[in-house]
Amino acid sequence: MLEDKRKFIAVIGGGQPTSKEAKLAEKVGRELARSGAILVCGGLSGVMEAACKGASAEGGMTIGILPGENRRLANPHVQIPIATGIGYARNAAVVKSAQAVIAVGGSYGTLTEIGYALQTGIPVIGLNTWTISRNAKQDKSIIPAESAAEAVAIALELAVD
Amino acid sequence: MLEDKRKFIAVIGGGQPTSKEAKLAEKVGRELARSGAILVCGGLSGVMEAACKGASAEGGMTIGILPGENRRLANPHVQIPIATGIGYARNAAVVKSAQAVIAVGGSYGTLTEIGYALQTGIPVIGLNTWTISRNAKQDKSIIPAESAAEAVAIALELAVD
Amino acid sequence: MLEDKRKFIAVIGGGQPTSKEAKLAEKVGRELARSGAILVCGGLSGVMEAACKGASAEGGMTIGILPGENRRLANPHVQIPIATGIGYARNAAVVKSAQAVIAVGGSYGTLTEIGYALQTGIPVIGLNTWTISRNAKQDKSIIPAESAAEAVAIALELAVD
Amino acid sequence: MLEDKRKFIAVIGGGQPTSKEAKLAEKVGRELARSGAILVCGGLSGVMEAACKGASAEGGMTIGILPGENRRLANPHVQIPIATGIGYARNAAVVKSAQAVIAVGGSYGTLTEIGYALQTGIPVIGLNTWTISRNAKQDKSIIPAESAAEAVAIALELAVD
Repeated sequence: MLEDKRKFIAVIGGGQPTSKEAKLAEKVGRELARSGAILVCGGLSGVMEAACKGASAEGGMTIGILPGENRRLANPHVQIPIATGIGYARNAAVVKSAQAVIAVGGSYGTLTEIGYALQTGIPVIGLNTWTISRNAKQDKSIIPAESAAEAVAIALELAVD
Repeated sequence: MLEDKRKFIAVIGGGQPTSKEAKLAEKVGRELARSGAILVCGGLSGVMEAACKGASAEGGMTIGILPGENRRLANPHVQIPIATGIGYARNAAVVKSAQAVIAVGGSYGTLTEIGYALQTGIPVIGLNTWTISRNAKQDKSIIPAESAAEAVAIALELAVD
Repeated sequence: MLEDKRKFIAVIGGGQPTSKEAKLAEKVGRELARSGAILVCGGLSGVMEAACKGASAEGGMTIGILPGENRRLANPHVQIPIATGIGYARNAAVVKSAQAVIAVGGSYGTLTEIGYALQTGIPVIGLNTWTISRNAKQDKSIIPAESAAEAVAIALELAVD
Repeated sequence: MLEDKRKFIAVIGGGQPTSKEAKLAEKVGRELARSGAILVCGGLSGVMEAACKGASAEGGMTIGILPGENRRLANPHVQIPIATGIGYARNAAVVKSAQAVIAVGGSYGTLTEIGYALQTGIPVIGLNTWTISRNAKQDKSIIPAESAAEAVAIALELAVD
């Protein structure tokens, strides 16, 4: 399989990021492509589009797992659009199709993706994203990174088989 | 529609709760049934089973939206088993089929359900569940309750149409 | 479980039936309710609404497993709306939540439901619905019925556990 | 988008084909790759694996949209595994992610995929697959082909945007 050689890394985040978050996502996309990784995302706008734009600019491959059933609604930087037609239930598929996940900023949809990844044992690296706690104790499963380059380095290192 | 008169309230939580959480879930189920509400849950064990047991004991109606495709795998207190066959992508369906959600304790699956509910504008009431923060600021959307009775009262009051 | 005593029977068919098909679906709904069966359907208009109307008129219980995420879009005769949000992938859930399936007329969506039911070993009874063949030989798995009463009688007799 | 230049064509069929069907599927895969098309399939064994094997042998790209949540359960010739985790509800995603569909032989699962494709207006070309009829009249929407090469030629010609 291709993925024996190339890692599949998901980039997750909201459709309406701050401009700082969008720039961060684009850098993550660039770094992933430079590392030879394949970018998996939800295929829509915001963080997803910025990451795909960055990856495409570096010649990387981009996969967009869409909520709708129209493959043409993928952002213009998605090369492989998957039209699931299952709505936001597709959030599970986005992370499970990856070997590690990088969360940039984040909305409630991102929170569902983080939950699905952690449930399945897929590492989550966070850039300015959610922190989660239970019984006044922070759950440290979301690994914080300080920069796009660091996030990508950690994701590639921790990527599960 | 039936639901014009009776509220549909989801109870979410992990398959392996503490005994304290299981008792809390059972009380929530009892209170919901006494209030005439219909209980929606994921149909499996742990918090889901305890809540269904409580509701059934009071003559309430219980709906279990299962991940698998075998309706007989519902816990014995589910009266209406829905066999989705879509795995944990069914978490979205559990909360979207309800007018308010009560989270008891909680695993990563519960976190996905909280995310889906908040994304859709469905109120979430928490009993010893996750707290979530962004940028070192707690997101107050999860409404804390001190007891099963209080959680049910808030859920019924805030239930969306 | 309730279903140990009451059978769950799905009625499937298109959103734009002929008036003859709509009348047939309503009769099927009536007969199911009279027999104490619970009606499962896709929750929308056409055959689904006619069947729910018939069942409701006889005091029967009706479950609508909706493609969308808004439970209020169920037809007015659905008592238990399930908002899956997974689009027409919910067709699998409609039949898998039932113990037998009655197909009335039918569109391409109905064809997917017939395929899912047969794949899972759930009996399909047909009223003026699809016939399917391979290698010029008809697949006899869809059991033809001549009337609503006959369809319901066969469905109840063949209902799987 | 990549797909402005390269067509995405789905090959569907059962997990337990006859040896004749498996050879046919492999030829379809070869022809698709030679034509520069990207192969979309369900990612498992039988017709899916044979088609991927053929496409891979010619240097083509292969996408496997899996029912399970473990991407490593794709057949060894899948280059891009998508782990949906939604079971056979993924059949809708397989055909909706393609611009035309080639059905080789076929089981009941294939029947659901044909139904989803026709419902969405995606052309279906058949090689020894189902024929479907209503009111004793054959539905001609499934376009018969006599050979793998002919099936691929028709699929590429009719591929929707």
